[in-house]
Amino acid sequence: MKFFEKLEEMQKKNNSLVCVGLDIDLAKTPEIIKREDDPVFFFNKAIIDATKDLVGCYKPQMAFYEAIGLDGLESLKKIVDYIHTLNIPVIIDAKRNDIGNTAAAYAKAMFENFGFDAMTVNPYMGGDSVTPFLEYQDKGIFVLARTSNPGGADFQSLDCEGMPLYQRVVEKVKEWNANKNAGLVVGATVPDELKTVREMVPDMTFLIPGIGAQGGGVESTIKNGVRKDSFGAVINSSRGIIFASNGEDFAEAARKATIELRDEINKYR
Amino acid sequence: MKFFEKLEEMQKKNNSLVCVGLDIDLAKTPEIIKREDDPVFFFNKAIIDATKDLVGCYKPQMAFYEAIGLDGLESLKKIVDYIHTLNIPVIIDAKRNDIGNTAAAYAKAMFENFGFDAMTVNPYMGGDSVTPFLEYQDKGIFVLARTSNPGGADFQSLDCEGMPLYQRVVEKVKEWNANKNAGLVVGATVPDELKTVREMVPDMTFLIPGIGAQGGGVESTIKNGVRKDSFGAVINSSRGIIFASNGEDFAEAARKATIELRDEINKYR
Repeated sequence: MKFFEKLEEMQKKNNSLVCVGLDIDLAKTPEIIKREDDPVFFFNKAIIDATKDLVGCYKPQMAFYEAIGLDGLESLKKIVDYIHTLNIPVIIDAKRNDIGNTAAAYAKAMFENFGFDAMTVNPYMGGDSVTPFLEYQDKGIFVLARTSNPGGADFQSLDCEGMPLYQRVVEKVKEWNANKNAGLVVGATVPDELKTVREMVPDMTFLIPGIGAQGGGVESTIKNGVRKDSFGAVINSSRGIIFASNGEDFAEAARKATIELRDEINKYR
Repeated sequence: MKFFEKLEEMQKKNNSLVCVGLDIDLAKTPEIIKREDDPVFFFNKAIIDATKDLVGCYKPQMAFYEAIGLDGLESLKKIVDYIHTLNIPVIIDAKRNDIGNTAAAYAKAMFENFGFDAMTVNPYMGGDSVTPFLEYQDKGIFVLARTSNPGGADFQSLDCEGMPLYQRVVEKVKEWNANKNAGLVVGATVPDELKTVREMVPDMTFLIPGIGAQGGGVESTIKNGVRKDSFGAVINSSRGIIFASNGEDFAEAARKATIELRDEINKYR
């Protein structure tokens, strides 16, 4: 099954656009997980078990697993395998990008070795740095268009021959998207840009970070970001869910935070 | 010692601007390495031993090690440790980029866990996605300005409010470079752009890919790319050196190709 179909199936089943960002940070996780053999897997599994009926997908952030070291990457492989037993899609937030043959190596690493269903891709190097990922027809990619961070404006908002850079990226992704397996990353912190991109590509799926800790509002995100059918959006929350409590009740607190976010999102859909 | 000093010291000692790109690809390596316990380490060590007196630095490409899997990353850690016993700096070509706290996690992974001396960074997400790398004062980064691939022109050459995007990146990197530990990536395949960037930042060090297999010429690269003192450039060659032969003489052939490139570069300096 193609990634976007698999994603939408789970979003419909769980009636949820929420994506839980599995951004492990051992400085913020509860003390009690440290007595486990594999605290990274234990923590994530507990979060997943507490939220699996409330999400459309999960999104681990590769940087945090790389920061732990090779052990972190081994735990990540166990995590993606575990999520797949639940039939829930996994997006890896890796923001990879390189020239053609090297991009193909990254695609192999993410889609074949780890088995992720989709990944984020940086567009700076242009067409031949993005298309190798799109050749995996059953996988998906989300190309960075307008990111949620303060520095996102440094280049992405520059007027490039009559149109901001992020809109140039949107235009190019439309061209490259022959297999219909590309989506876009647009931040919840920039509602006007989100609205513009939705108008440019009414049918595309967006990965939307920036809700919660980064300051993006749910109402404006849903009104500006979803498709007409109220799908086509993956609303990510990481810290607000997985670190909702750093006590023994961390999984229960994550469940509660996920329910609140899901319900708030659904109120505006 | 700071990265750029360490780099220049080795470039002077070996009278060479050559960087050997350690882009492992087990489909192209000689059959004879496959009987080794760790063929990835064996192959790279043989190349390194054959070229260590001829280079300024080495540059493994992360994608190719990730494509092998976790074993590939374990071999890569052994490779960087081995190169450090020779006192030669190692640039990891990883092109990482993400928002502030996530960029910091990538910096930890590359600079602390692996111990690389420098890395390549993608600028698309702007200031807060680049500065966490620059906080490691003894490490270096090379920010992508104008890349060597055909798609490099898709966005990097767009006129952004009076100046192509790649020049906007150069201007911003100058601003962010308070610790004087940033360089730029500019491709050998775009000699005019290389000349322009050199005029914009006469003192900065460039990582220059695209010689050889990608079609960049040595003469134009040196004339346009080096600083006035004939340093300030890292000239990378990967496939042209490490796959110069796929027979038993692969290391000897790599040495010969490195000598030829070093000498051709020095002819024009």
